[in-house]
This record gives sequence, C-alpha cells and structure tokens, in this order.
Amino acid sequence: MIVQDGRVQGPPLALTMGEPAGIGGEIAAKAWWAVRAAGPAFFLIGDPALVKDAPVALIEVPEQAAAAFPQALPVLPLPLAAPVLPGVLNPANAPAVIASIEQAVAFALAGRAGGVVTNPIQKSVLTAAGFPHPGHTEFLGELAGDGVPPVMMLACPGLRVVPVTVHLSLRAALATLTTDLIVEHGRIVAAALARDFGLARPRLAIAGLNPHAGEAGTMGREDIEVVAPAIEALRASGIEARGPYPPDTLFTPRARATYDCVLGMYHDQVLIPIKTLDMDGGVNVTLGLKIVRTSPDHGTALDIAGRGQADAGSLVAALRMAAEIAETRGKATRP
Amino acid sequence: MIVQDGRVQGPPLALTMGEPAGIGGEIAAKAWWAVRAAGPAFFLIGDPALVKDAPVALIEVPEQAAAAFPQALPVLPLPLAAPVLPGVLNPANAPAVIASIEQAVAFALAGRAGGVVTNPIQKSVLTAAGFPHPGHTEFLGELAGDGVPPVMMLACPGLRVVPVTVHLSLRAALATLTTDLIVEHGRIVAAALARDFGLARPRLAIAGLNPHAGEAGTMGREDIEVVAPAIEALRASGIEARGPYPPDTLFTPRARATYDCVLGMYHDQVLIPIKTLDMDGGVNVTLGLKIVRTSPDHGTALDIAGRGQADAGSLVAALRMAAEIAETRGKATRP
Repeated sequence: MIVQDGRVQGPPLALTMGEPAGIGGEIAAKAWWAVRAAGPAFFLIGDPALVKDAPVALIEVPEQAAAAFPQALPVLPLPLAAPVLPGVLNPANAPAVIASIEQAVAFALAGRAGGVVTNPIQKSVLTAAGFPHPGHTEFLGELAGDGVPPVMMLACPGLRVVPVTVHLSLRAALATLTTDLIVEHGRIVAAALARDFGLARPRLAIAGLNPHAGEAGTMGREDIEVVAPAIEALRASGIEARGPYPPDTLFTPRARATYDCVLGMYHDQVLIPIKTLDMDGGVNVTLGLKIVRTSPDHGTALDIAGRGQADAGSLVAALRMAAEIAETRGKATRP
Repeated sequence: MIVQDGRVQGPPLALTMGEPAGIGGEIAAKAWWAVRAAGPAFFLIGDPALVKDAPVALIEVPEQAAAAFPQALPVLPLPLAAPVLPGVLNPANAPAVIASIEQAVAFALAGRAGGVVTNPIQKSVLTAAGFPHPGHTEFLGELAGDGVPPVMMLACPGLRVVPVTVHLSLRAALATLTTDLIVEHGRIVAAALARDFGLARPRLAIAGLNPHAGEAGTMGREDIEVVAPAIEALRASGIEARGPYPPDTLFTPRARATYDCVLGMYHDQVLIPIKTLDMDGGVNVTLGLKIVRTSPDHGTALDIAGRGQADAGSLVAALRMAAEIAETRGKATRP
C-alpha cells in the first residue's frame, strides 16, 4: 500500500471486459480519460482491440498498472475467440467474458487488485454457452463468498438502497418475503455499512410492503406480521433499524437525511426512487463478499454499441466507489 | 365569466373546511396571502374561527367572493358544533365537515364556483360519525359523478401519474388488476387530459407490473397476459398508449419527456416517484367528475396543527391547477 498526496493508495482496481459486443470497451476508455489524472488507477482485463479511443498500455501483471496509468489505459490482454461486431452477441466469446471475471476476482483475493469493477454482461449469451449461474452477483458469490449470501446495494449521492427480494415477479416476491429474509439482509447490510462505508452505527430505514405501510393492518397484514418482527429482531441484536415506513414518503429529501440505507421489500420499491433521482450516477455494490465489487447500474446497451454515444458516468462512479470502499476496508484493518 | 388582464376569469373556487382539528384553516390563510394579488380567487366554506392569520371577509353567496378577495379571505360561514382543539378529533364536528363538501360541490355543479378544492379530511372521525363512503374521492363521485368511476391523478411540475389500483394491499392489488380495469382507466385519463389539460392527443405511458416489465415473461406473465392486451385495446380505440415499460427507468428526466401521464399498476409504483421528485408541490386531481376538483397531496397533519408550521405549497398548487383546469374546460366549451 502506497501513501500519496495524503491518501492511502492501494493496488489498482481490476475492470472486467463485460459483454464485448456492448459498450464495455467504450466506457472503459471514457472512464480512463475521466480519472487518469486524479485516479483511481485501474486496469482492464480483456481484448485490447475493444479499446478504440484511448491509448493502451499492455501489461503482464497488475503491478505494472499504476505506473502506466497516467499515460495510457493499462490492459491485461485476454484475447477473444471471434471478432466482435458491436451489438451482435456471439457465444464463442463467452468463455473469455467469464475468464475475465475469474481473473479479476483472483487478483482481488490475492490482494493484487484493490477490488473488482465489472462491466455489464449479457446473461442470455453466457447461459447459451453453458454458464450455470443465475447472474453476475451469484457467480461472484461463488468465487469470493464470505459465508453469507451476496447482497445487491444500489448507491448514488445521497441515497443507498437494498432490495430484500430482487429479480422476482411481484407475486413471487410476496411469496418469498419472510421475517428471516429481512433480518438476514439487515445484518449483512449493517455489517457492510460499517466495514465498507465506515459507518460505525448505520441507520437502516425499513420500508413497509404495502401502501401507507398497511395503515394499521387495513391494507394488508404483512407489515405487522412479517416486517415489524424483523425490525424488532434487528434492534434486539443492536442494529439501528426503524420502520416499517410508508414507502411513498421514504425518499423525500427530508426523509433521506434520517437514514444511511433503505431496505426495500421488492425490486421496484427501491429501484424506482434511486433511478428517478440519479439515473446515470448510480452504482451497484455487492455486499457480503471477501472482495470489493462494484459495477455500473446499467446494461450492455447493445442498441448503441459502437456509436460512441455511451455515458461512462456510472462506471466512473463505480470505480470511485470501489476505491473508497477499498480504502475504508484498508483503514479499518490497519493496527 | 369575466375577462380580466387578457385571462378568462371564471367564478371563484370553493375551498372546503376539511378536518377542523388539522391544518386546513392555517393553510387556507397562508394560501390567501400567497395568491391574493394574482389569484385565483377562492372562498372558504367553514367556521371563520379557524382562520387566524389572515383578514376574513364574511360572505353570504359565492358571487361576493371576487370583490372581497384582494383585501381579505372570503369565508362562507359554516359554524362548527363544538370548539376546536388543534390536533384533537371530535366527531361532533363531522356533520359540518361533510356539509362543507356538499355545499362546495353544489356551488360547482350550479356554475357558481369554478371548481372545488378540498382540504384534507380525517376519514376515521367521519366514519365514526356515520359517513358511509370509503373516502373523499368516492363521496365526490357520488355527488358529482359523470357516468364513470372517479380516478385519482397526482400531478407535479413535469409529471402526472395515475394508479390503476389505489388503496389496496399489494396482494389485493395483484388480485384486482385486470385488462379491463387498465383499459377503463386509460380511457378516463385520456379523456381528462384532453378536456382538463388541453392535450388533444395525450401520450400515456403504461408501466409494467413486474421488475423489468417481466423481462419477456421470465419474471411474471402478467405484463404479457394482462397489461399488454390493455395497451392494444387502448391503441385500437385511438389512444396513444405505449408500454408496458420497465417501471424503474420510467421516471428519469429523459423518460418523462416522452409522455403526458403514467398509468401505474399499484399505489407505490407511481406515488413513490412523484413524492420523491416533488413532495410539497404535488396536487391530487380527481378525473371523471362533472366538476373540477383538486386537493393538496398531504393529510390533516394533526401532529403540527395549531403551531403555524404547515406548508401551504401543495394547497397553493392545487388552487392554481383547479383554476387552470376550469379555464381549459371553459375554453373547450366556448363556441
């Protein structure tokens, strides 16, 4: 670990290739232009041919990235099996996409990368090529799990949210939601806010499930029978959890000042407000891993791939947040 | 109808008393200070004793309101049965609360008020006093229905939303949602956007029910089987309806520029984004009535009643929107 300008400089971040037919290469180049002067330093694990609008420094090991970074985007080469046509998926390239993630995680686990920032993948093409995991996050949980299920947090300036149920229909989310699931998420989130964000006593706001949080049971009993007992259990274990709050007034500026993170009961309850507030600067953070992992909060954008129109704002935010979390973890573990 | 400063000036708006133990009197006075110079003119139907911080002009008929308005808040007296303690509900005053709504609607139906703006009521105390209606909107539907169910729209600068299901648990909303219900709402909303907001060809964005609008059926079939057929039916009847859209990206600034109103499938899907964007300037508009009706988008605020802390911003916005709708309706019906 290097100290520079009064800041702790850890090892560089590893950026995965993501779907090669998407905007990953383009936003990697744009992100390098955005942060090359002030950092954080990062290197791309992927095919150098994907980087078109930035100078490239081919590197052999992560340790060469920091010195190269001010002049060029360091790339650890991982050649693709087939040529890339922007917007056209090709299962022949899936093994390299997967290998990029595996290498990045291995470097992070070994302390040779400060964290992993992932470019978006196209799940359907990986699945077609035999990828057995339901998604990016679950794969990372398998590679770098820390004894708890990985938990997805979305963060933008002024708001952090975690959905307790994620990629399920609303009907399936209702069937899946239990007191235990809320408690498990609350514990993982509280621990991560302390370890990764330096919040010694994080304040969790727990959203109700129903409109007006059920209005004393007149609009659904779940807030009384499922959510409230979870809050009691979290508080009993020393976690500053409050609620269940009426969901519609939980994201106003006044409300946002009262908590560090919202635990929402279903995907859109928390994805709607965070994307409404800050669509382009949102960051996806995976909590509960041994390593630091962030990613931009958007997809592969196949429809605009290769046109130079992609916005690297979310990737830049993801890189900065990964560096901050790595620094916080580093601080917390120093003697 | 009077023409003044180039603007069509209709009859004054009727403001109901609302819950006397709440903030209705206070925000009526504050709203009068805010709009007394530029209008719109309005009169309160209620107990004059509720108005503490504005000069009051007692009137006997709505026709006296416009002349009095620049100097004092016109009040058509409707005495309460019992003295009011701020924050303390008293069923003895419920009949006057109900009479205030009935009188306001009668004036609007007779063309003697340009529209009705309602102060918040406390449903529980009215129910205890024998009020048989599920809520304000349903009561207004009974008094001034126009052959269709009244529909609740929330509007703030830059966003209008209508929930297809409203005050139901999420589970009950799923059970209630049908293609017919979406189509009925779409038709009422499209007609109201034309009649009340002057949008000849309103663009409706229909939110999906499930995350990512079900992602081609992998997260719930309702978006394919319930929502999409409703959009087809609306389009077949000449209405510019599009969707189902992934709910989480439907409220970004870029998305908001593409439609005039969102039809959401459940309460919080549309209440969360509109309250997140503009908590204090939101207006509740009832569509599908013979009369113009708006109200502030907040409750009786018993907890701060009598302290002078209430924000009249939403009431002011409701008064202005009622005047604009009345003007649009007037324009549309002139020869």
